Amino acid sequence: MRMYDIIDKKRQGMALSDKEIKYVAKNCFTGEIPDYQLSAWLMAVCIQGMDENETISLTKAMRDSGDKSDLSVFDGLSVDKHSTGGVGDKTSLIIAPIVASCGAKVAKMSGRGLGHTGGTVDKLEAINGFNTSLSTNEFINQVKKVGVAIVGQSGNFAPADKKLYSLRDVTATIQSIPLIASSIMSKKLAAGSDSIVLDVKFGSGAFMKTPESAKELAKTMVQIGKACDKKICALITNMDVPLGFAIGNSIEVLEALNVLKGKTDTPDLSEVCINLAANMLFLCFGITLQEAKKQAINAIESGNALNKFKEWIKAQGGDVSFIDNPSLIFAPKFTVDVFSKNEGYIFCMDTEAIGKTACLLGAGREKANEKIDFNAGINLCKKTGDYVKCGEKIATLYSSEKKDFDYITEYFLSTLKFSGNEVTPLPLIYDEIR
Amino acid sequence: MRMYDIIDKKRQGMALSDKEIKYVAKNCFTGEIPDYQLSAWLMAVCIQGMDENETISLTKAMRDSGDKSDLSVFDGLSVDKHSTGGVGDKTSLIIAPIVASCGAKVAKMSGRGLGHTGGTVDKLEAINGFNTSLSTNEFINQVKKVGVAIVGQSGNFAPADKKLYSLRDVTATIQSIPLIASSIMSKKLAAGSDSIVLDVKFGSGAFMKTPESAKELAKTMVQIGKACDKKICALITNMDVPLGFAIGNSIEVLEALNVLKGKTDTPDLSEVCINLAANMLFLCFGITLQEAKKQAINAIESGNALNKFKEWIKAQGGDVSFIDNPSLIFAPKFTVDVFSKNEGYIFCMDTEAIGKTACLLGAGREKANEKIDFNAGINLCKKTGDYVKCGEKIATLYSSEKKDFDYITEYFLSTLKFSGNEVTPLPLIYDEIR
Repeated sequence: MRMYDIIDKKRQGMALSDKEIKYVAKNCFTGEIPDYQLSAWLMAVCIQGMDENETISLTKAMRDSGDKSDLSVFDGLSVDKHSTGGVGDKTSLIIAPIVASCGAKVAKMSGRGLGHTGGTVDKLEAINGFNTSLSTNEFINQVKKVGVAIVGQSGNFAPADKKLYSLRDVTATIQSIPLIASSIMSKKLAAGSDSIVLDVKFGSGAFMKTPESAKELAKTMVQIGKACDKKICALITNMDVPLGFAIGNSIEVLEALNVLKGKTDTPDLSEVCINLAANMLFLCFGITLQEAKKQAINAIESGNALNKFKEWIKAQGGDVSFIDNPSLIFAPKFTVDVFSKNEGYIFCMDTEAIGKTACLLGAGREKANEKIDFNAGINLCKKTGDYVKCGEKIATLYSSEKKDFDYITEYFLSTLKFSGNEVTPLPLIYDEIR
Repeated sequence: MRMYDIIDKKRQGMALSDKEIKYVAKNCFTGEIPDYQLSAWLMAVCIQGMDENETISLTKAMRDSGDKSDLSVFDGLSVDKHSTGGVGDKTSLIIAPIVASCGAKVAKMSGRGLGHTGGTVDKLEAINGFNTSLSTNEFINQVKKVGVAIVGQSGNFAPADKKLYSLRDVTATIQSIPLIASSIMSKKLAAGSDSIVLDVKFGSGAFMKTPESAKELAKTMVQIGKACDKKICALITNMDVPLGFAIGNSIEVLEALNVLKGKTDTPDLSEVCINLAANMLFLCFGITLQEAKKQAINAIESGNALNKFKEWIKAQGGDVSFIDNPSLIFAPKFTVDVFSKNEGYIFCMDTEAIGKTACLLGAGREKANEKIDFNAGINLCKKTGDYVKCGEKIATLYSSEKKDFDYITEYFLSTLKFSGNEVTPLPLIYDEIR
């Protein structure tokens, strides 16, 4: 088999065979196929597309290219959630203890933040002492005992995906539903959970800008999951507006804690978390969605989820005293209030740019390996649809370091568009794919 | 300017600006832009295409990326011919002395053979003593004195094209009219002649398989030439059948000589040569095409072209005694006649495979730098449209070395398809683009 012929076939828009796709996935990260051939192939795939069979073949081949987690000890109760990334997305911190307190097993690998999106591992590391790199044994044992463990990606999972993704990143071949879907799913499948709930976000802060494109991606991923014998579904959720009010690391941990404490001042965040958790329980236990939702709500109301959260944080070495004393986790040196220069309804927010504002404050990174300021972040007072008076406080910016706050304030204000008319935001949960 | 954005724009099918294309051409061969980005861009161009302006921009930028010949001393009389390559194509050897004997200036750089197509430089080197590498001064002085010089490519002409072509060759991005046209034209334009006649071949032995695709390529190249203020036209000629009967190096020199001697036993070769030469004179001197044709025919009939041929060969150090004694240039050790196993009209010939047959005999090379056997080759006795009896001699194979002649004979015979009905071959000169 020659890579040249495989490229040529895809250039002409023909479907590749399972053998051909396996050849690419097997040889792409060993140096056997040179980068210039891989990137030509990726561009051909990006423009000409891949059909369902090709996409499934690629996902399986990438899944099988490296290590795989064995979660069979959990007897079908292992469950994972994957979000396509957004701004203010702290759902994993809330959902994991909810479903674990209901008996599901969450053995989860999470990522770090990059660009405008945050990462669960960074947020957990804002907790003093929290250890995100457990050995495989420690990881499995903790899930057995506590029902939940979240660690950073380690090991050699889906190296074919890693290679292809790094090339896509520099060759403008990211925008391809089959490539995005197979990349995400190859890692999720290698991570080994029996049930997978996908949170596919749409809007100005998401990777997919429209609900339709998010739906298409979700459908493709659910197809792949089913073809690989997983229990799987996807919710299409709104990331046209940040989720909750807090954006940053420590500040998001506190907002997550608030939801687990039963506070109701972030209804959008609560609703998304309850729905994601319910779907995880639904897939995991085969109960009705209604029953699953009841269990998820009860987990919060009973305090079980909060207790599970404490147990989990302790198990991974984290200091839980911040739970009663927030200043132990969040004590920014600089606090700058932002006041509106406009009057009217917030018509839309450039949520990606709001994520970048948080980065400018030190809460995120532009390149991998950059250090993060856990105290940096934003607390929004107003979101899309809210009425704002001129001079009214609209947000607060936080940082441990003196930044060019005038510039950052202006940048933040430029992310908001105002209207004289009342605004109806897009629905929070736009659709679900089963 | 970022290469990423240029790739992304082309991926989406948008037209690139002159600045963007210049950026690619300027930086592609310096190591500034990595191969994996270039090949992704080439695939995007290959699938999404380039419009007229983009193609012209790319050609000019590649032309300007390296050395350029200055032929201004020839006061607008310099003229070049380019063939897109074929089997048995010895036209340059015939046309150059014809037009030089009429006063045009042929300062030509030619290529070597590769794959199934031969190269003029190889054919010339079959002549004892012929020197295909002159210094710039020697080259210009010879054209001044003799009116013609043909050398191999030397110097640093169009290095951007060289780089992009070498990547296209390994990434299945050859098949693109804008890329093919700009590649050919960037080199022709850097070579500096004022008038250019293109011989764009179609058919089973050509790069473009259909007359329509050859016409499209020709149109694009003529557009480019005009945009660069060249006098230019193209003939679309038949390469569905080898040109003439001889395929090889020494054997093709002899067939060319035959035409120059006024022999009429290769009417197809003569007709193509007269028409190409006439078009060169037409562009060069601004005379009517009718008058130009008369001059070309007269050059042969008067013996002027043959004399010019001798003068030219001598000027480049060649021994001309083969002109009266063919065995001095062509004396193959092995001669194998091929007899037909079929009866009927030859319906079609796989001309590319016939070129490969010549390669198997030693007349060509699969990879650059392979040595060539000048005595190797094929003499056809029958071509498409001819009636052949079973057992009738159909061709003769030649070689200096003992080859697996049984295998080569079978391979050759497999290139021919027979029919019980009379066959009308496609026209020799299908169209012309002005």
